[in-house]
Amino acid sequence: MRKNSGKSKIIRKALALQKFSQEQQGKSIGLVPTMGALHKGHLSLIEMSAKQNDITIVSIFVNPAQFGANEDFAKYPRRLQADAKLCEAAGATIIFAPEPKDMYPAPLQTFVKNIELENMYCGAYRPGHFAGVLSVVAKLFNIALPSKAYFGEKDFQQLHLIRKMTFDLNFPVKVIGAKTIREKSGLAMSSRNEYMSASERSDASSIYAGLLEAKKKHRQGEFSAAKLKAIIKKKIESAGGKIQYIEIANKSDLMPVKAKISEKAVILLACYFGKTRLIDHLEL
Amino acid sequence: MRKNSGKSKIIRKALALQKFSQEQQGKSIGLVPTMGALHKGHLSLIEMSAKQNDITIVSIFVNPAQFGANEDFAKYPRRLQADAKLCEAAGATIIFAPEPKDMYPAPLQTFVKNIELENMYCGAYRPGHFAGVLSVVAKLFNIALPSKAYFGEKDFQQLHLIRKMTFDLNFPVKVIGAKTIREKSGLAMSSRNEYMSASERSDASSIYAGLLEAKKKHRQGEFSAAKLKAIIKKKIESAGGKIQYIEIANKSDLMPVKAKISEKAVILLACYFGKTRLIDHLEL
Repeated sequence: MRKNSGKSKIIRKALALQKFSQEQQGKSIGLVPTMGALHKGHLSLIEMSAKQNDITIVSIFVNPAQFGANEDFAKYPRRLQADAKLCEAAGATIIFAPEPKDMYPAPLQTFVKNIELENMYCGAYRPGHFAGVLSVVAKLFNIALPSKAYFGEKDFQQLHLIRKMTFDLNFPVKVIGAKTIREKSGLAMSSRNEYMSASERSDASSIYAGLLEAKKKHRQGEFSAAKLKAIIKKKIESAGGKIQYIEIANKSDLMPVKAKISEKAVILLACYFGKTRLIDHLEL
Repeated sequence: MRKNSGKSKIIRKALALQKFSQEQQGKSIGLVPTMGALHKGHLSLIEMSAKQNDITIVSIFVNPAQFGANEDFAKYPRRLQADAKLCEAAGATIIFAPEPKDMYPAPLQTFVKNIELENMYCGAYRPGHFAGVLSVVAKLFNIALPSKAYFGEKDFQQLHLIRKMTFDLNFPVKVIGAKTIREKSGLAMSSRNEYMSASERSDASSIYAGLLEAKKKHRQGEFSAAKLKAIIKKKIESAGGKIQYIEIANKSDLMPVKAKISEKAVILLACYFGKTRLIDHLEL
């Protein structure tokens, strides 16, 4: 339970990391899975893990299995050396940076799938995405053998599905979600924000503004999902954004609110500013 | 690495077993997953595990997730006390016998699926069966935390899919397959054999006789999958059996041999004698 002050070690092979983790008997291991291009959101997870565990493993892997054919796998930012320095400063012990052929030495046949929720919300627009996410997280759990694993709440549906996978399949891992870190404008931090021009980035602050406005209206007594969604839609579209989806879901099971909000709920959305797809959420 | 000579302990709760296994640091754990109604095939697995590990966990769980709606879940034989004695004599340390509501405290949403092979061979006739098998084996791996797990070759497709799952998802488990144990007649031992009348059981010896005859013809130079399958079909049907499927598959990837056998292959089949569905296989 100490902040690591030494140099982080980079491990490139899954088998080498698994062996390392198996040898850490009695020490607590925290895992922070990332795709690199680290921002303050990631660093908050690494710092949390470094405080709560003897060893913190940060994985940096742009996972091909979770990208669709027409998505941004090729252009997703990769900068291992810069990321490694950030990991080290935040307290990481190990940086796990495998090559795709080490994570997928043969075509993957075995997938972990949430058959209820994988095709809803983001999954409706990204076929196969969540099967790719759950499968790689299962792999990382089995390779890094953590007692705790840290994920940002920003990918809200992803976090929900990972929690459910961990519960359903009895992984001996405590999944810890951490608050979304936002820029001063309110824009949720994301490695994809750097795809945007300065003006798009400024316009995209309308997302959080819309979410906050809906939350305020809800607190004032508005329980209609349709009306709250319309507030956000108007705000984002006025700023030049294009909505992919806005939904309100029950927080407990992520089932959509059909008409009136009746229990703790969360707004989920995806939209485009220019060619950049952004997601955000807010708990009501 | 000793044969356990003490009394086996029965554990009923998944969390209790997971805690037990997490506390066995430095000791090797072997897992033998079963559905109970133990026969000599199961006992050979338990004995093998007891020789190779410090601790042997035998799970006894008739897994509802792997039975179809019209299958034999309700009538599958259950006799925990008798099974427990057999486990103890064979060297088991722990018998894990959970209730369905402990293994499935909430409806399972997260399944482990082999998207290439789950609907072939037995999977073609038992929709959802292999997703149920892989999911419960993943759960058992995460609950019992074994370093080795033992399965019979009799369920040949199942063993192949479990090996592939373990590889694909990086489970830190060595999967060990053990030879099919047969009755004197050649009939592969199965908990389902007891569903048959004495005469059906006698007729069912034609399965292995047919497999052996096909293997002999193959050794004499017959490489046509169709001709080898016809030999087995004739033998089983002459004895009153009804074929569900006979296929020849490459052993390496379980892909079907379309015409001529060209690499190490295995015959896979399922058939009925009376109302009892039986499976068998033979490597060529």
